[in-house]
Amino acid sequence: MQIEKGTDKFVKTLRVLITDQPGYLGKLTTAIGNEGGNIGDIRLVKMGLQYNTREITVLVDDEEHLQRVIKAIEKLDGIYLEDVIDPVLELHKGGKIEVKSRIKNCDLGVLRKIYTPGVARVCKAILEKPEDAYNYTWKGNSVAIITNGTAILGLGDIGVVAGHPVMEGKAVLMEMLVSLSGIPILVDTRDTEEFINVVRLISKGFGAINLEDIASPQCFEIEDRLIEMLDIPVMHDDQHGTAVVVLAALLNATALCGIELRSATVGVIGLGAAGMGIAKLLKAYGVKRIVGNDIKETAMEMLARMGGKTDSLEGLMRHSDVVVATTGVPNLIKPEMVRKGQIILALSNPYPEIKPEEALRAGAIFASDGRSVNNALGFPGIFRGALNVRARKITDRMKISAAKVIARFAEKGELVPNIMNLEVHRAVAEAVERAAIESGVARVME
Amino acid sequence: MQIEKGTDKFVKTLRVLITDQPGYLGKLTTAIGNEGGNIGDIRLVKMGLQYNTREITVLVDDEEHLQRVIKAIEKLDGIYLEDVIDPVLELHKGGKIEVKSRIKNCDLGVLRKIYTPGVARVCKAILEKPEDAYNYTWKGNSVAIITNGTAILGLGDIGVVAGHPVMEGKAVLMEMLVSLSGIPILVDTRDTEEFINVVRLISKGFGAINLEDIASPQCFEIEDRLIEMLDIPVMHDDQHGTAVVVLAALLNATALCGIELRSATVGVIGLGAAGMGIAKLLKAYGVKRIVGNDIKETAMEMLARMGGKTDSLEGLMRHSDVVVATTGVPNLIKPEMVRKGQIILALSNPYPEIKPEEALRAGAIFASDGRSVNNALGFPGIFRGALNVRARKITDRMKISAAKVIARFAEKGELVPNIMNLEVHRAVAEAVERAAIESGVARVME
Repeated sequence: MQIEKGTDKFVKTLRVLITDQPGYLGKLTTAIGNEGGNIGDIRLVKMGLQYNTREITVLVDDEEHLQRVIKAIEKLDGIYLEDVIDPVLELHKGGKIEVKSRIKNCDLGVLRKIYTPGVARVCKAILEKPEDAYNYTWKGNSVAIITNGTAILGLGDIGVVAGHPVMEGKAVLMEMLVSLSGIPILVDTRDTEEFINVVRLISKGFGAINLEDIASPQCFEIEDRLIEMLDIPVMHDDQHGTAVVVLAALLNATALCGIELRSATVGVIGLGAAGMGIAKLLKAYGVKRIVGNDIKETAMEMLARMGGKTDSLEGLMRHSDVVVATTGVPNLIKPEMVRKGQIILALSNPYPEIKPEEALRAGAIFASDGRSVNNALGFPGIFRGALNVRARKITDRMKISAAKVIARFAEKGELVPNIMNLEVHRAVAEAVERAAIESGVARVME
Repeated sequence: MQIEKGTDKFVKTLRVLITDQPGYLGKLTTAIGNEGGNIGDIRLVKMGLQYNTREITVLVDDEEHLQRVIKAIEKLDGIYLEDVIDPVLELHKGGKIEVKSRIKNCDLGVLRKIYTPGVARVCKAILEKPEDAYNYTWKGNSVAIITNGTAILGLGDIGVVAGHPVMEGKAVLMEMLVSLSGIPILVDTRDTEEFINVVRLISKGFGAINLEDIASPQCFEIEDRLIEMLDIPVMHDDQHGTAVVVLAALLNATALCGIELRSATVGVIGLGAAGMGIAKLLKAYGVKRIVGNDIKETAMEMLARMGGKTDSLEGLMRHSDVVVATTGVPNLIKPEMVRKGQIILALSNPYPEIKPEEALRAGAIFASDGRSVNNALGFPGIFRGALNVRARKITDRMKISAAKVIARFAEKGELVPNIMNLEVHRAVAEAVERAAIESGVARVME
C-alpha cells in the first residue's frame, strides 16, 4: 500500500449540550473560532427542555490545539461538552467488513439443503471433482488479504493486530469496486519459513492471495516461493499493484512529453517493495535501460541480479530520462540534480522526494507527486480478472494489460483515472482476463 | 456437526423444452410417472414460438432411477430435455457466503478515512491499546470456522476442500441466527503440531475459534492445547456444541420422566468427539455416575482418566438409567439390552442405534433419535454470548447455562426447541454472557 500520512488528522466532532436560549450557540462558536478552531457541520442531535444537544465538527491542527479549544468551551456558562468523537474512529466501529449469507429466504427446508444433511451432496461433488470448489464455495470469489504486520502503511513494523484495519480497508475496496470477498488474515510471525508455511496450509480455501504490507527484502522471497508452490494467484500488492499503477502513470506522462518509454533510461530511486516491483514491471514491459539506487547495498545487488544497472543518486539523476522515486524521504532530490527535460514522479506521500513545482522550476519537463497514484486503481481489477478465469498465476502480461487500460481511462492531462470510476475496474478485469487466457494460466476460457 | 445422511438425496429439476400444443405436457408427466418419478413443482420458465421451457422438480430414488426417467423422456417426440439441475448444488453456486462492506455511501472522502491515509489513525489507536481491535475491526464479531477435513459430517476424512461447504453452512447459520461473521479457514494438514501452530499464528484476527469436523482423538489434544495458549474462546463444536444440545434434551427428557439427572447413572455409548463432549459436560453439570463404552480401548482409557467408569455395551445398558448413543452404528442396541424404565437417546443419523418405537416396546420409558437434536441450537448463541463480553474462554458454566436455556424453550413434550426460533439464540447468548461474567472470563462487563 502506498505511503501517505498526515491528512484528515484532526477532524473531531464535539457533542455539546447548549442552553436553549438565544445567544448560547453564538457564544460557543465564537469561543471555538477565537481559539482558531475551524468549524464544519453543526448538527442538532436532540432538543431537550433546557438544553439542546448539537454535534459540531471542528478541524484543529493537533492534539494540543484540540485541548485549547476544549478548555475554552469548558469555561463557558450554560454549555457542557459531553463527548469528543473522532469521525474516523467512528467509521471503524464494529469493523469495516462482515460475512453475509448469500442464501435468501432461508427456512428449515433450505437449511437442510445448505447444512446437514443436504450439504453432504455438495461435499461429495467437490470430492469427485476438486475444481468444483470454484463453483460451490466462495473460492471463486475470494481473496485472502494476508500480512505479517511488518510494513503497515508508513507506520512500519507495528504488528498484525494494529495493521488489521488496513486489511479490512482493502476488503472494503474489493467489495465496493469489483464485488470480491476480501478476507483479512493476520499471520503473526516474522519468520519467513513459518509465514510461507501458514499461507500454504490455509491457501486452499481461497481463490487468490493478496500479500500485503510485508517488509522488504523478506517480501520478495515470500512472494516468489508462494507463487512457485501454489496454483492460485499470489500477488504482493505493495510491489505489483503499485507497479501497475506507476506504469500506467508513466505511459501517460511519457506520451504527454513525446518520449518513448521503452527506449528511455528510467531511474528508480528506492528499491524497497514498490521500487523493485516497478523495476521488474518496467523490464517486463520492455524498458531496456533501468538504473536503480538505494541506500541498502543488498537492494542494489538485487536489482543488478535482475539485469538493472545501479548508480549513485547523483549519477542516476544525471543519466535518466524518467525518474521514479519511492523512498519515503522528503526532499531527497535536490533541484540541482534535476536534468533538463526529465520526467519525475516523486511518489512518497505526503512529502515527495521533490515537489512538482520545484522540479519543473529546475528544468523537468513533467513532474508529479504520489497523491493520485493510488494502488487501489490496480489490485481490484487484477484480482477480479484473475478470478473470472480461475487463473493459476498473475503474469507480467496480465499486469501490463491492466496498466494500459488504467492509462487509457485517465482524463486528458491526468496520469491516472479516478479510483471511484467503476468502469475502470471493470475494464481492467476484462483486460486481465484476456491476458490470463493468452498467458495460458486460465483454468476456464470465457 | 451431527451425522445425518440420506435425505434430500435425489431431488432434481429437469429443464425441458415442450412443444406448445395440447397433450405434450401430459405425455411428459405420464412418462415420468410411469417410471415411478414423483413430480413436484412444474414451473413455466419461458414461452417460445414453438416450444415452452418448463422446469419440473422430480423426486427419484437414486442415480439409476434418474437415468431411467431421463431415458423415458428422451424417447418422447416433441419433447427435449435441456438440462438436469440439482437444486442443492444450485443453491451452492457461487458459494453460500460473501464478505460485505459495512461502510455505506462510500465516496472519496470516506475512502480516505477508511483506507490510506485516514486508517493510519486507527492503526495507531490499536497499537496503543490492542484491545481496541475489538472496537475497530471485525474481531469483536467474528468466529473463524477451522477444520483439517478429517471428519467431515458422516463422510469422514475427505479433506479440507471437499469439507469447505460445511464450513460455509455454519457461517450462514452464524449470520442468520446471531449476526456473527463466520470465516471458513481450511488448514490442510493432518499433523497435530502443524495444525495447532497455524491456528495459533492466525488467531489474532478473530474473536473466537470454532474448531470443526476434526477427527478424534486428535481433536481433544488440539482443542485442549489451543484453549491453553490462546486468550480467545476456542470450541470444538462437534464435542461441546453437540454436548450442550444433548444436555438440554436430557434435562427435558428426565424432567418428563421424573428422574433427577444428577443422581442418575448415565451411559454414554460411543466415545468419539460427541460422546466425550457429552460425558465431560454431564460431569461438569454434576452427574455423578457416568459409564462409557467404545470399541476403541484408547477412548475407554480417556473416559477413565476424566473420572468415568467403563463397561461393556451389555453392562452399560444393564446399569444405566439414561443412555446416550453417538456411535454412527445402526441398530447397535438390541431390544433385549433395554432395561425397564430407561431413557434412551439414540442420536446417530439417519439410522439410530435403536429406533424409538422399538426401544419403547422393549420397556424404555422414553426414547428419541437424533433428528431434532441439532447442534445448530447451541453454537450460534454460545459464540454470540462469548463475543458480546469479549470472553477469553468458554467455560463449563457457560455451556450449562446455554443448555438450560435451550431446554426451557422447548415446547411441552419436545426435547429441544425449533432452531429457526431466533428468540432461543438471543436467550442463549444472554445466558452465556452472564455466565462468562460470573466465570471471570469476560473482558467487558455489561
